[in-house]
Amino acid sequence: MSVRGELLQRFLDAASGGDDETLSLMLSQSRELLDERGEQGWTALMLTARNGHYEAARVLLTSGCDTRVTNRSGQTARDVAVFWGHTHIARLLTGTDTQEPDIHFNREILDRMSDRRSDGEWLASRRASPETVFLLFHALSPLVRSGAEREEQIELCKLRSTAVQELLTGSRTLEVFLGVEKQDDGQPAWFALSTEDDPSQLLQDKDPGSFFLQEAMPGLLRLSDDDAGVVAQARSVLAWHSRYRFCPTCGSDTKVEEAGYKRTCLRAGCRSLQGVHNTCYPRVDPVVIMLVLHPDGKQCMLGRKKIFPPGMFSCLAGFVEPGETLEAAVRREVQEESGVQVGSVQYLSSQAWPMPSCLMIGCHCVAVTTDIKVDQNEIEEARWFTRQQVMDALVKDKQAVFVMPPRQAIAHYLLKHWIGCNANL
Amino acid sequence: MSVRGELLQRFLDAASGGDDETLSLMLSQSRELLDERGEQGWTALMLTARNGHYEAARVLLTSGCDTRVTNRSGQTARDVAVFWGHTHIARLLTGTDTQEPDIHFNREILDRMSDRRSDGEWLASRRASPETVFLLFHALSPLVRSGAEREEQIELCKLRSTAVQELLTGSRTLEVFLGVEKQDDGQPAWFALSTEDDPSQLLQDKDPGSFFLQEAMPGLLRLSDDDAGVVAQARSVLAWHSRYRFCPTCGSDTKVEEAGYKRTCLRAGCRSLQGVHNTCYPRVDPVVIMLVLHPDGKQCMLGRKKIFPPGMFSCLAGFVEPGETLEAAVRREVQEESGVQVGSVQYLSSQAWPMPSCLMIGCHCVAVTTDIKVDQNEIEEARWFTRQQVMDALVKDKQAVFVMPPRQAIAHYLLKHWIGCNANL
Repeated sequence: MSVRGELLQRFLDAASGGDDETLSLMLSQSRELLDERGEQGWTALMLTARNGHYEAARVLLTSGCDTRVTNRSGQTARDVAVFWGHTHIARLLTGTDTQEPDIHFNREILDRMSDRRSDGEWLASRRASPETVFLLFHALSPLVRSGAEREEQIELCKLRSTAVQELLTGSRTLEVFLGVEKQDDGQPAWFALSTEDDPSQLLQDKDPGSFFLQEAMPGLLRLSDDDAGVVAQARSVLAWHSRYRFCPTCGSDTKVEEAGYKRTCLRAGCRSLQGVHNTCYPRVDPVVIMLVLHPDGKQCMLGRKKIFPPGMFSCLAGFVEPGETLEAAVRREVQEESGVQVGSVQYLSSQAWPMPSCLMIGCHCVAVTTDIKVDQNEIEEARWFTRQQVMDALVKDKQAVFVMPPRQAIAHYLLKHWIGCNANL
Repeated sequence: MSVRGELLQRFLDAASGGDDETLSLMLSQSRELLDERGEQGWTALMLTARNGHYEAARVLLTSGCDTRVTNRSGQTARDVAVFWGHTHIARLLTGTDTQEPDIHFNREILDRMSDRRSDGEWLASRRASPETVFLLFHALSPLVRSGAEREEQIELCKLRSTAVQELLTGSRTLEVFLGVEKQDDGQPAWFALSTEDDPSQLLQDKDPGSFFLQEAMPGLLRLSDDDAGVVAQARSVLAWHSRYRFCPTCGSDTKVEEAGYKRTCLRAGCRSLQGVHNTCYPRVDPVVIMLVLHPDGKQCMLGRKKIFPPGMFSCLAGFVEPGETLEAAVRREVQEESGVQVGSVQYLSSQAWPMPSCLMIGCHCVAVTTDIKVDQNEIEEARWFTRQQVMDALVKDKQAVFVMPPRQAIAHYLLKHWIGCNANL
């Protein structure tokens, strides 16, 4: 074998074996190896795809290799990855393996450190630390002030322990440990405090200009993405506390444990204290929200609830029922609300929605029937819209025949994704 | 243009416009049009992929067209579909657009007909109908008898109204309307009845040989897929009733409404009667369950809980927390339980799990670190296993170093899918 042939064989062997360091090193010296085919007509990328080497495939992609090259059977590296069941590599090769979209309420700046929730000593030391951040809530609304950067934005008030001393010791204050900052070495801890009595007066002295949001919606949509993520966590837990003070199994009072993540019945012998159950933990209600695509691929269905702002149409949505899969819930909800039958269902992304504690599960799905017959109890109208009509609504064109849901809602993302405003375009 | 050229142009136009009837008709007369390229080097399939015509693409695929043909830019029809964001068509073209896998508890033989839940008159007429099917539960266990076909199988007892008359009128019987049969024109309705007192004696007269399951697990895994789907729905709702009899907001007693899908507080003026909340409706607890893939693609991580049968290892899993996305929950749980950090997360399938009312959300995810450090409170051990080891366990080879979770669990499906036992192979 020629020196050149030996070099190629070593390169291809490194790809087969997932040896990404050797691949990087060899490419830095002989870049032309990148898309070269071996004896079987396979490139290094195809070999990483065959054997499921994610990192090695990433090294080759980052070096700029050509994903369109085919082997003697006419297969691309992606075909090979799909055939062998390496979905994550197939996604990497189509460029759809990016991080999740940065949807409002989803950003997580804190490490929740759930193992510290029952560590009373550690929690007490964090509570006393001058670095620690306290967020204040009253009637489920966070304490905020007007944003410094943009007029429509508001920002969370991040208080220090000295400012909340009176509240911390008050018996009517509920405390939830949120986590510690991910990025910082000092790792300041964050807590949410919820007061039963309105502490506005107290705060006017400590932090003039601050106020509690009057309405959660659309108020919470005016927070920055960082702030919204923390509020999603805190508000979901606090909403549960505000409605679940009594034991649902026996009706007795409960006590808060595990830094705000558990409520335990105070009556000895209550059945909720034994066995497998969920009465003691915060609820998370899964909701499916879906963009229904017309079988012709040129239209999508949107619906209108009476409570929507004038002209607004959005994706259909509904709670997942007990004993149901996500896909079954999508089919049932679309059928119930619009009379349209759905075939294929594709999960795209999820979103935390703290009103009061939903997990929005965003899908595209393909209709197999097209006649709309709305259930008037659920929505007042549902219609098929064309791509052009969705684009007009997205750019708020004067011609637009409807108004899009706000950019902070996952429905907005599902629509944008459909008309091709994604990472690929 | 030649007659032949005109014919091709008409065919390609039909593909561009999503006119699947014309495509079918033309193919029945001139099958050679199927993979022919037009002036731009595009086939009919590429044009359907470009414009998002699902049905038209399906007609071409069913006719046997070649998905590997490329245009002048070297793109296959799938490349085109991915580029233009038509994920559902890309899935159709890779053959991964099949119906969801038929996992235990997921089959739905009933149409839930939720719009009938508040129609007292209709419910009463169904209750009285001789066709109607009643399932009996006591202490959350269904009444069953030994299966006729296979010894290890058990089957649900489907009783008629005459057999349950005494229970139907009893004040201590809880009734849940499950739906009507999807397939049958007569549409018999199904109800679940749960009794507080053990009705075994009564039933020995009506249905000798029947018995209540002693243990839900693994008893429920011995049901047929049809029976398991109905039991998943009924048991999830009944488990909620058994633990949520009192209003969690004020501790008062509640009454059952909407055919078993709502409990309303009996105290006038209770806060749970106003505003947006979730106290009155059955819980569904979303759980993420994930197969963690090693960055080298050759190994996957499984964990062992103390309560597992000897030798069994399974996927890691955990409840989604308030304010969290599915992907964030996957990353947090894997990190907490094993110390391993996860990058890409891919949703695969979900499963109803009525112990008591979980929605299992099954994912593959890719580790970016490999050192395992287990949290002993959660699992006793976690290890990387090779594909060969998983295959050995799947076929119950003598060499197998561990025992797989049972085929009825979604973890089994996630493992099988990884080693390539899917529709593509």
